Amino acid sequence: MTHKVLLLPGDGIGPEIAAQAARLLKACQEAGLDIEVEEALVGGSAYDVHGEPLPAETLEKAKAASAILLGAVGGPKWDKIEDLSKRPEKGLLGLRKNLGLFGNLRPAMLYPQLASASSLKPELVAGLDIMIVRELTGGIYFGQPRGIEVRNGERVGFNTYIYSESEIERIGRVAFEMAQKRGKKLCSVDKANVLEVTILWREVMERLAPEYPDVELSHMYVDNAAMQLVRAPKQFDVVVTGNMFGDILSDAAAMLTGSIGMLPSASLNESGQGMYEPCHGSAPDIAGQNVANPLAMMLSVAMMLRYSLNEQAMAERIEAAVGSVLDDGLRTADIASEGMQTIGTDAMGDAVLAA
Amino acid sequence: MTHKVLLLPGDGIGPEIAAQAARLLKACQEAGLDIEVEEALVGGSAYDVHGEPLPAETLEKAKAASAILLGAVGGPKWDKIEDLSKRPEKGLLGLRKNLGLFGNLRPAMLYPQLASASSLKPELVAGLDIMIVRELTGGIYFGQPRGIEVRNGERVGFNTYIYSESEIERIGRVAFEMAQKRGKKLCSVDKANVLEVTILWREVMERLAPEYPDVELSHMYVDNAAMQLVRAPKQFDVVVTGNMFGDILSDAAAMLTGSIGMLPSASLNESGQGMYEPCHGSAPDIAGQNVANPLAMMLSVAMMLRYSLNEQAMAERIEAAVGSVLDDGLRTADIASEGMQTIGTDAMGDAVLAA
Ligand SMILES: CC(C)[C@H](C(=O)O)[C@@H](O)C(=O)O
Ligand SMILES: CC(C)[C@H](C(=O)O)[C@@H](O)C(=O)O
Repeated sequence: MTHKVLLLPGDGIGPEIAAQAARLLKACQEAGLDIEVEEALVGGSAYDVHGEPLPAETLEKAKAASAILLGAVGGPKWDKIEDLSKRPEKGLLGLRKNLGLFGNLRPAMLYPQLASASSLKPELVAGLDIMIVRELTGGIYFGQPRGIEVRNGERVGFNTYIYSESEIERIGRVAFEMAQKRGKKLCSVDKANVLEVTILWREVMERLAPEYPDVELSHMYVDNAAMQLVRAPKQFDVVVTGNMFGDILSDAAAMLTGSIGMLPSASLNESGQGMYEPCHGSAPDIAGQNVANPLAMMLSVAMMLRYSLNEQAMAERIEAAVGSVLDDGLRTADIASEGMQTIGTDAMGDAVLAA
Repeated sequence: MTHKVLLLPGDGIGPEIAAQAARLLKACQEAGLDIEVEEALVGGSAYDVHGEPLPAETLEKAKAASAILLGAVGGPKWDKIEDLSKRPEKGLLGLRKNLGLFGNLRPAMLYPQLASASSLKPELVAGLDIMIVRELTGGIYFGQPRGIEVRNGERVGFNTYIYSESEIERIGRVAFEMAQKRGKKLCSVDKANVLEVTILWREVMERLAPEYPDVELSHMYVDNAAMQLVRAPKQFDVVVTGNMFGDILSDAAAMLTGSIGMLPSASLNESGQGMYEPCHGSAPDIAGQNVANPLAMMLSVAMMLRYSLNEQAMAERIEAAVGSVLDDGLRTADIASEGMQTIGTDAMGDAVLAA
């Protein structure tokens, strides 16, 4: 059966790195992978053409695809759009919500070749390998009621942080299963000393724990988790948390590696359909200059092969190719260091394909 | 006029470090400071005696005081209390809310003597001096409605993230004024690409900016702020944000220094009344062992002298004493390092008093 892959380049450096992913997909096809690749617009670039960050056509294609590869969305060009529902970010949030991509896997792992890129002392991050499991279609991102309105003679802004038991259970199971495949340690992050919604979160995690007796479950308050990530990140194996805390902690964790340009992510729904994207953003400041690091995007292809297309071997080949390119001393500007050769986006794509 | 100072030792290491603060207050009295010191119970220790984390008597004393010094609250002993309103944390939250202590000042500064304690590379944190201004009586900590209830046949947990224009303006002014007295840079942290409440937040900050033409205002999304704190913390001077984001970011920032046992904080209301407490928690694991670091608590006394009692000179004397103790190579266990002398809580108190 031919798998449909939808490529959504998006904004900023998105198109440049997506171009490298497209070349990689072609190479996979040549190596026997049975896929059909389509492209569509999302984010600011979709807004510019259709007046919508998520045009109906893009959403239809996304629904029909086995997997989606997304570059990045957003940029200052669209920051002034008054109507929040038209902003580039809503293209991304709309895809997540409409496809039910509730399970966001954000690995923060340090490539040994890039150990010196971390802002932390080498001994604290050597071998770092954390998997953050973030709930992606609920919580305060989507909670109702929300808005800005006049109350008692002045404007108030409000959002609702809400989770149901079934939403918590669903992401909890993803995290427990992930921990079973990894180091068997799961840390659930909440603010149960203040927020009722996270009291329920903690309770559901506790209820699930006996079903995964091989996994050691712990709980941590989000403020402490932010501290512990800075202090001793290697204490973590799998971390599970809600949408907002996951946004903050996964970015902090990614930055611990010093090479966010290397990190892919996956967002999965209940039927295994997935969207894959780099952890980094659209970096509008360096867009169009052929300097962006395409590796997170190319590793997103590997992640897609692993989680949505069940092509482990090919995923490993890509990951190995990236490793060998780093071994060869090739670096894009974001991960440049003394004695290494700094190359552009295209050249990095070439190197990975060659490897 | 005699100032009333209320000392609330609290739980865990609270009583030990509060004892050192009490000695310091006595020394200040001997040096001519006109204060009257009272003590009261709060948190778990109040719950154990009165069944309430914030007994009416404590609240009355707090209202009557010019300034409050708090050790820390909470511990595993009280984690199983089902009723959230009886947990130790509610003692702290109740004090903040009842006294209107909306303006939380959390400095994250690196003592040059302790540079090696940071988990970050020395060149990234040398001279670090960030002031986080956190809104403390609003946002999702106090928003209504909140709770856990059955909807559509299953339980849901929910909280409300809400700010009014006047609440935002009030904390905004504290932050702008703080920036004027410091490096004249203010970074407001929000999630305005997703949350309406923070769209209003950003708008109010923008509206205030022209009144402080000497301050350079910037905005950053909270996920990016968490990353930037790890990547290049010295880019920040003053940071202003809401209650929840402030909780997370101030702890991460404090941990960048590697010596959270050194950091005091202030929480002020509109009439300048303040509560002063260490940034660290109650550390129940080391309570009662005479190993806790009393310096954050003693520096909280200095902060109190500065912000609530207007005694700059005496505040500076305390800060200088702490500096000279560090210069002398004295360290508690949390900041111990090779070649330095590790001492206990009492001995550290002695050393500061002697200096
Ligand atoms: C662009 C933004 C809406 C998004 C989020 O907050 O989820 C991004 O920060 C991410 O983490 O994927
Ligand atoms: C103890 C807890 C309620 C409190 C908070 O979240 O505000 C603490 O973490 C703090 O930052 O002072």
